[in-house]
Formats: sequence, structure tokens, C-alpha cells
Amino acid sequence: MSLDAILARLDADLDAATARLFELLRIPSISTDPAFATDVRRAAEWLRDDLATIGFDAQVHDTPGHPMVMGQIDGPGPHLLFYGHYDVQPVDPLSLWDRDPFDPALQDTPKGKVIRARGAADDKGQLMTFLEACRAIKAETGRLPCKITVFFEGEEESGSPSLVPYLKAHGDALKADLALICDTGLFTDDVPAIVTQLRGMLGEEMTITGPRIDLHSGMYGGMAMNPIRVLTRILGGLHDDQGRVQVPGFYDDVAEISDDLRTQWQTLDFDANAFLGEVGQSQPAGEAGRMPLEMLWSRPTAEINGIWGGYTGAGFKTVLPAQAHAKVSFRLVAAQDPLKLRAAFRAWVEAQLPTDCTVTWTAHGASPASRMDIGHPAFEIARKALSLEWPGEAAFIGGGGSIPVAGHFKEILGMDSLLAGFGKDDDAIHSPNEKYDLSSFHRGQRAWARILTGIAEG
Amino acid sequence: MSLDAILARLDADLDAATARLFELLRIPSISTDPAFATDVRRAAEWLRDDLATIGFDAQVHDTPGHPMVMGQIDGPGPHLLFYGHYDVQPVDPLSLWDRDPFDPALQDTPKGKVIRARGAADDKGQLMTFLEACRAIKAETGRLPCKITVFFEGEEESGSPSLVPYLKAHGDALKADLALICDTGLFTDDVPAIVTQLRGMLGEEMTITGPRIDLHSGMYGGMAMNPIRVLTRILGGLHDDQGRVQVPGFYDDVAEISDDLRTQWQTLDFDANAFLGEVGQSQPAGEAGRMPLEMLWSRPTAEINGIWGGYTGAGFKTVLPAQAHAKVSFRLVAAQDPLKLRAAFRAWVEAQLPTDCTVTWTAHGASPASRMDIGHPAFEIARKALSLEWPGEAAFIGGGGSIPVAGHFKEILGMDSLLAGFGKDDDAIHSPNEKYDLSSFHRGQRAWARILTGIAEG
Repeated sequence: MSLDAILARLDADLDAATARLFELLRIPSISTDPAFATDVRRAAEWLRDDLATIGFDAQVHDTPGHPMVMGQIDGPGPHLLFYGHYDVQPVDPLSLWDRDPFDPALQDTPKGKVIRARGAADDKGQLMTFLEACRAIKAETGRLPCKITVFFEGEEESGSPSLVPYLKAHGDALKADLALICDTGLFTDDVPAIVTQLRGMLGEEMTITGPRIDLHSGMYGGMAMNPIRVLTRILGGLHDDQGRVQVPGFYDDVAEISDDLRTQWQTLDFDANAFLGEVGQSQPAGEAGRMPLEMLWSRPTAEINGIWGGYTGAGFKTVLPAQAHAKVSFRLVAAQDPLKLRAAFRAWVEAQLPTDCTVTWTAHGASPASRMDIGHPAFEIARKALSLEWPGEAAFIGGGGSIPVAGHFKEILGMDSLLAGFGKDDDAIHSPNEKYDLSSFHRGQRAWARILTGIAEG
Repeated sequence: MSLDAILARLDADLDAATARLFELLRIPSISTDPAFATDVRRAAEWLRDDLATIGFDAQVHDTPGHPMVMGQIDGPGPHLLFYGHYDVQPVDPLSLWDRDPFDPALQDTPKGKVIRARGAADDKGQLMTFLEACRAIKAETGRLPCKITVFFEGEEESGSPSLVPYLKAHGDALKADLALICDTGLFTDDVPAIVTQLRGMLGEEMTITGPRIDLHSGMYGGMAMNPIRVLTRILGGLHDDQGRVQVPGFYDDVAEISDDLRTQWQTLDFDANAFLGEVGQSQPAGEAGRMPLEMLWSRPTAEINGIWGGYTGAGFKTVLPAQAHAKVSFRLVAAQDPLKLRAAFRAWVEAQLPTDCTVTWTAHGASPASRMDIGHPAFEIARKALSLEWPGEAAFIGGGGSIPVAGHFKEILGMDSLLAGFGKDDDAIHSPNEKYDLSSFHRGQRAWARILTGIAEG
């Protein structure tokens, strides 16, 4: 039957598919750094051209920021929207990479072959699993089993400033029966997963200004307020000694998970020590009295993602700087309102400023948490498909990260999302030496082929 | 009489003296940054050559770090050692400079002509006031009135790593009846000063390491410890809400100033509001209940001079970094022991580290506070000389900065130091747009001519 032929074709075509992915990985599409804007566009154009070879009607759509890629192809089954992002994280510190982040390579490791490059797992390798499945189905059967719209974003790693306006402007084309999103991971190396709840994200950048100019600590030390001292005092109080965030009202809209879900998560084979051991840690650092999976999936967090001020070069400079800066992000859950918490965080900081210090703010994205309605039959179809490709039975899990687009699909297009991805905990996304297992790339393609044909058969 | 002729020559020669200073200011002798090592050496060689033109027997002496310059010339009077430093602070942030920091210019300002360049006030302009005085005396009288050894350091802005070994190795040549140090400022624009007590300095650099690699806060946020969070929590507790440093034992060896000195300081016309107003501040930020001059001169401080970690570039990166860093310095007074406090600070930090975090240290200089014996007749001679060149009567004051060499002269060479300098509070040393008033440069030369001839006459 044709599914077997499709899967056989994907097996036979793996080298060519890997070569296509390498072409995309060679484009340094770093969206947070304006210096790479033309590379981001090149990646969008590469995807448009690859979609066309499959038979999609594809375009690159300009936005005030980086472009979007949209492609459509008809089919008899339900209308599905597939989402992925083609932009990648910055690569610093470059010194910690074992090779050029944008010179992809297939490497043998004790755990099997991996594709090594920035973006291999997040998210270029993942989105290509879907395109390869479409390519094989089209080649084998002459058409796609469902009507498919693909939508690739180029600003996912930089707060998606153009996403909401774009969804509102192109709602008619993008509205489908269900969204498929491939930007998540396996639960364990052998157990695939479908993410049914995700944390939201609020990003803030703050600059505290004290003196008019940098001062010499010998001349002014003891008299003038040092903004680094103010910044560390305020951010040093962001958590209490139980790991709870101290911004007033932060937990107001945080619901506890249901007993059912708690039981299901407790039965999941999650080894917190192994998870942390991978990165040289031994103790969960979150809220006291919470089980590790709660810390990751259903509890909100506050993190300082960057801090800088004063003299940071070689040697020493006894300066009292005029300014100190920090980038702070919050992972949000349940009904937490990003904009309400942005206001609460800013008010909390401003209330602690001493005389002679001011703060200025830059907003970096705000998206609520999302929870899927898994009643749609596609969820069980997908769970069975994944279970056939990996050793373990697939699980419905939560996600610690943010995939704002899932929330926006729900709010703006009234569409649920099925989040199936094949990354691993040791993929080092957002870190030096990011990789994507070749087995994830291969099994992912086969899983999508099963899911698309399965959904078409209903 | 010959002093008048010497002063007249200094007046007539001011343009040429300014041109000589500009040559020295054009050399970017930044000692903290290894990239400028050859420039530092060029500055040393320029001084050696200029000393030779005056008649000094001058050499550049290599050290494990940047070179020292020593010059000697005979004279009938007491042996005086003159110290200055020819290295300068880094210039970042360069964007805040109105012109190239190493392209000196004479500029008209509402408060008179100024010499604008990095190092103009700290310390190239100041040390040249002494050389110009020597040049004029030699030209006018054929000799110097005292035996003079000049000693110029190239590591003053980078913790003086070679100073103590050098003083020990060259003690015989450097030991004099009195040291003259020109690296301080006027008390007010119209009131010159001789600094009779100085704060010491302890510099520390710390790196806190948490995870083995940078992590994605979506995947690990809430589970892995963020070293920036640890750094801010610890340094945020460096001061209590009264501005007192919380390192155990920090105040053990801090003596209160004498009632005499307190009375003298109270009579000094110091306008804390104007002093702070210059730099956009309105309230003293030091220990509660201390008078401003105590905060600056006789109370110890702790300051965070630099902090960095995580993503600090354009846009946003939701990273949990593997490391976070800070540069911290302490201004020391009275009998505070720098090495004892270094150990106390490190122990205080290490005691607060959570599981899974470690700290590594880099030492950046350690010098005790110093207090001069003003019994030596040169102190009164100098006070009178300064009073003749500026509108106000010269004062004996304290200094908030550190001039470690003064302490080392006392410990290693058993020699007191007379600290007379002509900088102003608005010179912006260690900041963008550093300047030195032409009047300071001119009056300083005349003052040294009076002091040298005065000391010779006894």
C-alpha cells in the first residue's frame, strides 16, 4: 500500500534530504542581529524555492521585520497549517564551538550520527522533516492527501514582532482545521511526545541610569550611587530563598495542574538527576516543594538572561558607570497575563529605585501560556504514528518553552495546534555545538508521512 | 632674583610646554589592555628622551609588565623623588567622546581654556608640570636646586603589578629625603590642596560558574541554577539599607578621624550638592549618618565596577548562561588590611554559593590606606607656594582615591610623600572627554618652581 512505498522512498532519499537540509543550515539566519538581515531573507527565499519544487504555490511575504514564507497545495483531506521557523539563535560565544556553526557536518557520536550546526534542531532540521514527508508523498502518489498550508517565520528567536499583524492580515489563507507545529522535542531518547501545554514568555530589557557620566570610584566612591549596585540589589531580590518570584501578583493567575495530569506526569519516567547531570548540575533550582516536571511545565519562572555594566574588559577599571543593563524573561503558565505582569514587574522595579536613579525599558515579546484541546482525532492519530517510529509509546506532555505562535493561532485564528517535534535534551539548542540526531531527522519524516495519511483517512 | 626669572620663563614658554604635552597625549598608553603594550613603551621612551633634553640621566627599565622610567640629576639641596604615571585609563565607551581621545586639543570653555584628551589630567598633564618646572630652572640657573630623581610608572591604572618588586630592586636609587607625587586634585577650583591621607584599594574579579554549558531557559528554566541570579543575589547584599558593607570584619580596623581633623574638614567649604550636581546626582549615597567628606576621605567603600554575563547583544536571547562575572573594588582606610579583607570577601561570597555553583577569583591589586607625617618642613613650604599661585589658601586634605605608591614608598623606602596635584572635579578622569585646565597646567609648573627653590633654601 502507498504508505509503505512513501516510507521506503523516505528511507532511500535520506542522503539527498540531508544534503538539502545542509544547504539551509549554511545560511546564517540570525534574526536578533540586524547584521544578518540579508541572510535571513536568503533563508526565506531558499524555502520558497524548495516548496516550489515540491509543487507548493509559495511566496516570500515582506513584513516590517524579517519576511514570512507561505506555501499552499491542495488535497482532498482536511486543511492543515504547518508552522516552523527558519531563523536561528546567535552563536556567541563562538570560541566554544568545535567548528563553524554554519558549516554543517554529519558526525558519528557514541549515541549515533548527528547533524552538527546552529539551527540543526531549532528549527531548520525539524521543519524539513515535514517538507521531506510532503515531497515523498507527492512523488509517490502525485498529490498530497490533505490541503496543506505551510507557514515559516523568520522572527521566532527575536520575539516575533511581525507575527500577530501577519496572522491578522492573512487569516483567510492561514485558518485551517488544525495547526501542526514542529518545534518541540522527544520526551526521552526513546519516547516521543506531543506537547499539549506550553509556557508563555515575557521579555524585558532594563537600563538603570545613575550619574550623568562614568565616574572615578576614588573621587566619587561613597558619595555617588552606582547603578550596578542598584541593579544587583533589585534583581538579587527577584526570588526569595524558596525560589518564588517576588513580583506582586505574579502567582495570582497560576492554576495548579489537575490530579489526572499530576498522576500521568508522575508515571512518566523522568530522571531529574540525569536531566541535570547532562549539564553539570545536581539539584533542581526551582520552587521548593515542586516536582521537577512541574518546575519545567506548569510553574512560572523569572530568569536574568543577560546583565552588563561598567568595565568588562581586560584588567581593572575603578569606574562608577553611568548605566547598568539587564535582560529579564518570565516563563508564564495557565492564565497569567503577560501585559499585566509586564506592568507589575516594571512597577516593582521602579518602586525600589533610589533617589538619583532612573530606569528605561525595552519590551521583548509577550505571549500567554497555551493548552490544547486534545479531543481532535488528529492527536490520537499522531500519538499512534509516533509510537510506531520510536521504541517507546508516545506521551502527551507539557513544555517548558514558549511557542507563542500556538497561542496566537488559538486567539487569532481559533485553531488548535498539534505540537510534535523530535529534538533531544542534549541537542544544545541556543548553545554552542547545537546538533540534531540523524535518527530524529529520519523518523520525523516517516512520522509526518503517517500522520498526514492517517488524518486524510480520518 | 632668580625665582622671578624662572616664573617668567615658564609664562613665556607655556605654548611650547603645551605642545610637548600634546606629543605625550597622542600616545595611547592604555596599560590595562595588552593590545596597547607597544604604545605604553613608546610613552616611556618619549619621557626618557624628554628627561635627557633637560639634563637628566634617564633610562627605561623593563619589568615583567610595562616599563618604568627613571631619571636622575644632581643638585645641592635635599634629595627629592618625584613620581607620576604615564599610563592612562581605557577610553570606552568611545561613542561618548566628542573627539578622538588621543588627538589632544586646546578648547575654550565657559570656565577657561582646557586641554582635552585621555590622560590630560590623569596623569600626563600633571607629571609634565614638574618636568617643565625643572626645565625652566635648569635653563635659567644652569642646574637644579636639589638632587632630583624622577620615577614614572606605566602600570598605575592596572594595579601596579611590577611596582613593589621594582622599588625593592632599585631602593638605593629611589630612596630620597621626601617623595613628591603629582596625581591628585585641587580642593576647589580656587583652593589648592596637599593630600595628607589617602584610601587604599582592593580589587577583585569573580566568575561564578553554574551549568556546564549555556542552556535554553525554556528547556531548563526553573530547574537549572542561573549564575547571574546567584551573582546578583550575592552582590545585591554587599551593602545593607544604611549603606554599610556586609563583609564580616570589614569595619574592624577602621578608626574614626580625630576631632581636630573633623573640625578642620567641617570648616572646609565643601558643597556636597554642587559636587554631586556636577554629575547629575542630588543625594550622598554613602553610609547613613556620615558627613560627605568622611564618605570620600575616611570611610571605606565597596563598589561593583563591572558586571557581565549571558546575552548582552541586540535583541533577546532566552539563555541561562554557564557563567557570570563581576569586578569589585574596595576603598580602604586607616588600618584595614587589604589581604585580610580579600580573604574575608572571598569567604563571604563562597559561603553564599548554592549547590552546583562555583566561583573563581582574579586578584587586581591590594594597597593599604596611607597617612603622611606633615612635620617635614616641605609640607608648609609647599602649602605657601600653592597659596601664592591660586586665589585661595591651600589646605591639608584627605583623598578618596588610592595612590598605592605613597603607601609603598612609606613601607619599602621609609619615605613620606607630599601629594600636590592640580586636577579639578570636572576633569572627567576615567570618563569620556577627560580634560585638564590650562590654568592648572600653568600654575602647577609655577608652584613646583616655588617648591623646589623653597626646599633648597630650607
